[in-house]
Amino acid sequence: MVDRIYRVNMTDLTAKVEDVPENWAGLGGRGLTSTIVTEEVVPTCHPLGPNNKLVFAPGLLSGTVAANSGRLSVGGKSPLSGTIKESNVGGTAAQQFAKLGVKALIIEGQPEKDNFYSLHVMGDGVEIKEEPQLEGKGNFAVVDTMLERLGEKTGVMSIGTAGEMMMPVANISVKDPEGKLRSAGRGGLGAVMGSKKVKCIVITVPKKATVPIAEPENFKAAAKIFAKALMEHPVSGQGLPTYGTAVLVNVINEAGGLPTQNFRYGQFEGHDKISGETIHDLIEERGGKTRHGCHTGCVIQCSQVYNDAEGKYKTSGFEYESIWAMGADCCVDNIDHIAEADSLMDDIGIDTIETSVSMGVAMEGGLLPFGDGEGIVRIIKEDIGKGTPLGRLMGSGAGAVGKAYGVTRVPVVKNQAIPAYDPRAVKGIGITYCTTPMGADHTAGYAVATNILKIGGDVDPLKKEGQVELSRNLQIATAALDTAGLCIFVAFPALDIPEAFSAIIDMLNARFGISLTADDVNELGKTILRTEHEFNLAAGLTNKDDRLPEFFSQESLPPHNVVWDFTDEEIDEFWNF
Amino acid sequence: MVDRIYRVNMTDLTAKVEDVPENWAGLGGRGLTSTIVTEEVVPTCHPLGPNNKLVFAPGLLSGTVAANSGRLSVGGKSPLSGTIKESNVGGTAAQQFAKLGVKALIIEGQPEKDNFYSLHVMGDGVEIKEEPQLEGKGNFAVVDTMLERLGEKTGVMSIGTAGEMMMPVANISVKDPEGKLRSAGRGGLGAVMGSKKVKCIVITVPKKATVPIAEPENFKAAAKIFAKALMEHPVSGQGLPTYGTAVLVNVINEAGGLPTQNFRYGQFEGHDKISGETIHDLIEERGGKTRHGCHTGCVIQCSQVYNDAEGKYKTSGFEYESIWAMGADCCVDNIDHIAEADSLMDDIGIDTIETSVSMGVAMEGGLLPFGDGEGIVRIIKEDIGKGTPLGRLMGSGAGAVGKAYGVTRVPVVKNQAIPAYDPRAVKGIGITYCTTPMGADHTAGYAVATNILKIGGDVDPLKKEGQVELSRNLQIATAALDTAGLCIFVAFPALDIPEAFSAIIDMLNARFGISLTADDVNELGKTILRTEHEFNLAAGLTNKDDRLPEFFSQESLPPHNVVWDFTDEEIDEFWNF
Repeated sequence: MVDRIYRVNMTDLTAKVEDVPENWAGLGGRGLTSTIVTEEVVPTCHPLGPNNKLVFAPGLLSGTVAANSGRLSVGGKSPLSGTIKESNVGGTAAQQFAKLGVKALIIEGQPEKDNFYSLHVMGDGVEIKEEPQLEGKGNFAVVDTMLERLGEKTGVMSIGTAGEMMMPVANISVKDPEGKLRSAGRGGLGAVMGSKKVKCIVITVPKKATVPIAEPENFKAAAKIFAKALMEHPVSGQGLPTYGTAVLVNVINEAGGLPTQNFRYGQFEGHDKISGETIHDLIEERGGKTRHGCHTGCVIQCSQVYNDAEGKYKTSGFEYESIWAMGADCCVDNIDHIAEADSLMDDIGIDTIETSVSMGVAMEGGLLPFGDGEGIVRIIKEDIGKGTPLGRLMGSGAGAVGKAYGVTRVPVVKNQAIPAYDPRAVKGIGITYCTTPMGADHTAGYAVATNILKIGGDVDPLKKEGQVELSRNLQIATAALDTAGLCIFVAFPALDIPEAFSAIIDMLNARFGISLTADDVNELGKTILRTEHEFNLAAGLTNKDDRLPEFFSQESLPPHNVVWDFTDEEIDEFWNF
Repeated sequence: MVDRIYRVNMTDLTAKVEDVPENWAGLGGRGLTSTIVTEEVVPTCHPLGPNNKLVFAPGLLSGTVAANSGRLSVGGKSPLSGTIKESNVGGTAAQQFAKLGVKALIIEGQPEKDNFYSLHVMGDGVEIKEEPQLEGKGNFAVVDTMLERLGEKTGVMSIGTAGEMMMPVANISVKDPEGKLRSAGRGGLGAVMGSKKVKCIVITVPKKATVPIAEPENFKAAAKIFAKALMEHPVSGQGLPTYGTAVLVNVINEAGGLPTQNFRYGQFEGHDKISGETIHDLIEERGGKTRHGCHTGCVIQCSQVYNDAEGKYKTSGFEYESIWAMGADCCVDNIDHIAEADSLMDDIGIDTIETSVSMGVAMEGGLLPFGDGEGIVRIIKEDIGKGTPLGRLMGSGAGAVGKAYGVTRVPVVKNQAIPAYDPRAVKGIGITYCTTPMGADHTAGYAVATNILKIGGDVDPLKKEGQVELSRNLQIATAALDTAGLCIFVAFPALDIPEAFSAIIDMLNARFGISLTADDVNELGKTILRTEHEFNLAAGLTNKDDRLPEFFSQESLPPHNVVWDFTDEEIDEFWNF
C-alpha cells in the first residue's frame, strides 16, 4: 500500500490519515521517529503531558523479505531521561505497519476522561475504543484478549500496569510471531503511552497486503547476498543462534567488563550459572527452544523459549542484558529466579535493564541484600506490579533510587541505567553511553564489537586511543540501520563482510527505485544524530550531560584496576563531525 | 577575635585554621559561602561524594549589636537541585562563629568508616570526635545531649535521622537562644552533612569574646537608627511581631495567590483556621508565646512558642511557609495536625516546604486523600523518620514524588519545591522562582513585598510589567543582605525608609573601618548572583532551567483565572545586568 501517516488525537479521540510530507519520504524507523519528535514536540514539555507525542515507525525495509528487517522504532520525549528517545523492538508490528502503508503512527494529546482505550489500526484508518475490561491487566492477558477478539494474526502492542501507572521504567510490549512478547524497553515510553490512556494498539492487515518493491529482481538478489552473509558470519550465524545473546556472559566476564555488585567489580563469581552455555543446556533438558526469532524473516534466531524446571513455559527473549542486570549486577546466580523476574517484568511491562540496575542500587542502599533473587521477584510482583510506594520508587529508575537512598555509585547517564558492559574496561562503549542522545544505551553504537569481539577491527578496550572515532562511526551506522528497520546484529556481518554492507544499500535502492550511495547512508546517520542532539540541547541538556558518573573516574575496576580517564574535551570531540 | 577560616577534612579527620585569603576578606554569609563553593567545589561532582564541601559562614554584621544580624549562611552543592545552594538560618551559631573569629567553617572530604562524628568548634580549632551514641537520634535529643555535656550556652547545629540517611529533603538544625530549633531548610544540605558523617557541630565561645568594631561610635549611632526603623515599619514593627509570618495566610489568600490543593486553586476555604490571627489567639489561650526571636538581637520577633491543647510545648518557628504547605497545599485545616507535623519535621530534620509540597504531589498521585493531616503526620513519623521505602520516596522531594506517581502538576523549579505564593497570581515572585540560582526560593527576591504588600513601590501582581526588574533589584539587594547576615525582613523598612538602608551601609563601614557606598553594595549583590550563576552553568544548567513547570502556562488559577505568560526571552532578560 502507499505509505501514509496515521495520526491519532487522544484529546478529542479522532484519527486521520495524512499524506507523507516530502521531507519525511526518505525516512523510516528511528530516522522518522526522531525527525517527527524534533519537528512536532516542544522540547521542554512535560513528557507525560498533552504536548508530548508517541511515534511508531517501521523501518524502510520492514515488511519486505529482507532478512532481519522487522524492527520497529518507537519515539517520544522520555520521562526517564528527559531526552529524545528511540526505543527499538522486534515483534510483528513493524512488518504489519509496513504492509498496511503505515509509515508512522503518531499519537498526540491526552483525553480528559480517566479511561483506557485501544487503537485498532486498519488499512483505512484507526478505530478508538474504550477498554474498561483491559485496565489493570498484564501484557499477556491483553494479548490473549485481543487475539481472541480479532484472531491469531492480529498485531498487538500494549502496556502493562506499570505503563498505566506512568512509571518511568514502563516499556511497550510488542507481540512476536508466536504470541510471545518483545519490548521497546528503554526510556519509559510505556509511561507516555499510559499518559495518553492507550492501553493497546492492535493491527489488522489484509491477507494479501504487501510492500511495493520498485525493482523486485534487484531486491531479491541483494536480499539473498545479505541473508547469506548473516548466516556465514560466526557471531550472527553461529554464536547467537546457538547460545542466544547470553553467549556474552562468559565472554564479557572473561574480559573483566561484566559489571558486578552494582558496578563494583568487573567479574562475577557465579557467571557460569547464568551463562548462555548453561541456559542452552537447561533449555534442551527442559524441552524449550534454543532458537527463536523475534520477528518473521529473522535468520539469526537469537531468542529462545525458556521453560521452568517442570518443563512449563516461563519466558522468551531471555536476553543477555536482563540476565546480566539481575544476575551479576545484583549478584543473583539462580537462573530460574532471573527467568521468573524476566517473565514478571514482561507482564507488568517494565524495562529489565532499568529495573534490575535499580535493584542493584537499592541493594547498595541497604533495601535488600545482594544476591536476594527471591526478594527481587517479590518486589517486582508485589510492589512494582501493584504500585505500592516501594514499587513507585523502584519504578522510577536507578537514578531516583540512588537519590532516595543517598547512594553515590549510581550507574546512569542522562538518568538512564548503564547496561551490561563496564565502561572502564570497555572504553569504547563508555563513549557511546556518554554521547548517544538516548542516555546510556549500548545498542546506539555497540563498540563492544570492536573492543572485545574484534569485529570490524581491533581497538584495545582498556585504552582510550581510537574509541571516540570508533563510537562515532558505529553510532552513525547504527542510526542508519535503525532507520532501515534492521536488527542491530546485522552490523556484525556488515562490519566484516563488504558484500553484506553493499547489499543493504542495494536493497534500499531496489525497494524505492532510488540510488543511494554509501556516503548518502553515512550522511543520513549523521543527520539523525544531529537532529536528536538538537532536540536534547533545546530541552536543556548540555555537554555536561555527556558524562559518566563521577565514581567511574574515582574507583578502579578489578580485575584490570582501570578507571574512566577521558577528559571532557576528548569526549566532546565526538560531536565534531 | 581575628577572623580565620576553619577547615575540617573528614577524610583524614584533621582540622586546621587558616588565614583569610585577601579576596574573601570583604565577604561574609552568602557572599562568602557562594564564593568558596564556586572556587573549591567541582561543579559536576556528586553532591554526596567526597568532592562536595559544606560551608558555614556568619554574616559581616553577625556578632555585633546590629539588630537582626544573627543569620548564618550554609553553602554547598545541593543534592536536591544540583545547583549551588545557600540556605539561610537564624539561631545562635552565626553570632557565636563571628565572636570566635570563625569567618567560615569548611567541611570537606568523607571518612571511610561508617561512624558519625561531632565537630567541636572552639577558639583554637576544631575537635573531631566519634559519637556512636548520637546515631539515629532526632535533633531535639542531640541538642539536649550536647547542652548537658557542654553547658546551656553551647551552640549546636545538627542533622536528624533524615540527614543521616542523606535524604534530599534533609535540613540542618541550629539551636536558638532558648534551646529550640531553627532550620537551614532548603536544598538538602543536611544530606551533605550526613554524607560527611558529621552528626553535629557544637560551638563554645569564651565569655568575653566580642567582635571587633573599627569605629564603635559610628556603629552605635547607625545601629540605633536601624533598630528604630525596624520597629517603626508597620510590617516589621507590628504585623510580624503580633501574628508571626502566618499573618500572610489571610493576606495571600485574599490576593488569590495562596496555592491550594497542589497548586490547583489560589484560595483555600479553610484559610481562617490556619491563619496568623487564629494561631495568635490559640497561643494566648494555651499559654505559649506570640513573640519570640530566632536569634539574640532580633527586634522583630516573628517566631513564637506554640503549645498543644493541653498547654504543653509543641513547636516554635511555626512559619507561614510550613503552615501553608501542609495547610492549603494539602488542604489540611487542622492547625494542630500542622503543628504536630512541624515538630516532627524539626526533629527528623527535614525541610517543611519540600516535604509538604511532596505530600501535596503524592495526594495528587493518589497516595492519600487531600486533607488527611493525620496521614501526613503518620508518614512523616513512621516512614520518613524511619527510612521505609515510602519514607525514602517522600524524602526525595516533590520532583521525585511527581515522577514516581506520574503527576504532571509538580510545582518545582530546578527540582526544588515552589513555596507559598502562586506565581500566576504573584508574577514578581514567579520571576524570582525561575531565575534565582537556588531553585524555587521566595527568600531570594521577595517580590511579594511590592506585588502584594506594596512595600518599596507598587507593581501589579497580575501583570508582567516591571516584574523582571523588580525581581532583579530585590535579588541583588537580598544577596547583599544575606552577606551582611541580616534577616530578610529588614528589607521591609530598608525599602520604605531611606535612613534604614543607609544605616546598613554605615554599620558595615563602621564595623570594618571602610567606606562602602550604596553602589558598592549593589555591585556586591550583582557579583554574588553572577558567581552563583556561573557555578550552575558549569554544573550543566542552562536557561531552560530558569523556567516554571509547563502546567503554570496551561492551567489558569482561580479566582483570577490567570496563567503564567512570560516568554523565554522576557525571563532571560533577568540576567542582563
